[in-house]
Amino acid sequence: MSSTTRPAIRVLPEPPGLPAPLPEPAVEDLRLETVLGALSGPLRLSIVRRLLLEREEFDHPCGWFGFDRPKSSLTHHFKALREAGVLRQRQYGLERRSEVRVDDLNARFPGLLDLVADWDERPA
Amino acid sequence: MSSTTRPAIRVLPEPPGLPAPLPEPAVEDLRLETVLGALSGPLRLSIVRRLLLEREEFDHPCGWFGFDRPKSSLTHHFKALREAGVLRQRQYGLERRSEVRVDDLNARFPGLLDLVADWDERPA
Repeated sequence: MSSTTRPAIRVLPEPPGLPAPLPEPAVEDLRLETVLGALSGPLRLSIVRRLLLEREEFDHPCGWFGFDRPKSSLTHHFKALREAGVLRQRQYGLERRSEVRVDDLNARFPGLLDLVADWDERPA
Repeated sequence: MSSTTRPAIRVLPEPPGLPAPLPEPAVEDLRLETVLGALSGPLRLSIVRRLLLEREEFDHPCGWFGFDRPKSSLTHHFKALREAGVLRQRQYGLERRSEVRVDDLNARFPGLLDLVADWDERPA
């Protein structure tokens, strides 16, 4: 944990009537090597960090982040994070929204999300 | 932290007269995205986990691990871990030995080494 006063990880209640999550690994099948691999890039860390600290709604579409990247590239990164078990995604009509699997990751890898939340986003 | 009684991370005193470390990033230059990337494979996690929990000497050559892999492949993995800042390596004549940078990693990424120590090495 850093000694700076970063915002807390935001946990929001699950609203009723959500679409079913897209396919994802069960919590007991999460693998540390896979999760670390999925997180090992600045864009991936930025996605997860912003969802942790800045979420305004239960889940967010990739447009919310304002990344200056092609949508196909973003879709790939979000999918990789979902398939590793870091993000949960739901399809709302044409829009796919993401949240972080905070409870599942805290249960399996305690402290990992704090490291991501404390990540210093400055360019290397 | 798992609820199982895994061994503690072993910290051994630095013996006098060590060779200088091979080139490595300074503690303040460690980057989470780089460290996570370096750790994101079962062999890499196994190397670090065994050094953390099973070390018998201050540092160990790659032969100590008994991995059934070509030496060139192992050399590559150890070097990647050193260049990311996870391992410190020293050259003893013809032999290169490794230890985990426990203090540096705990200072920058608290809890990360516990996740590695708690890693469940069963095949995915």
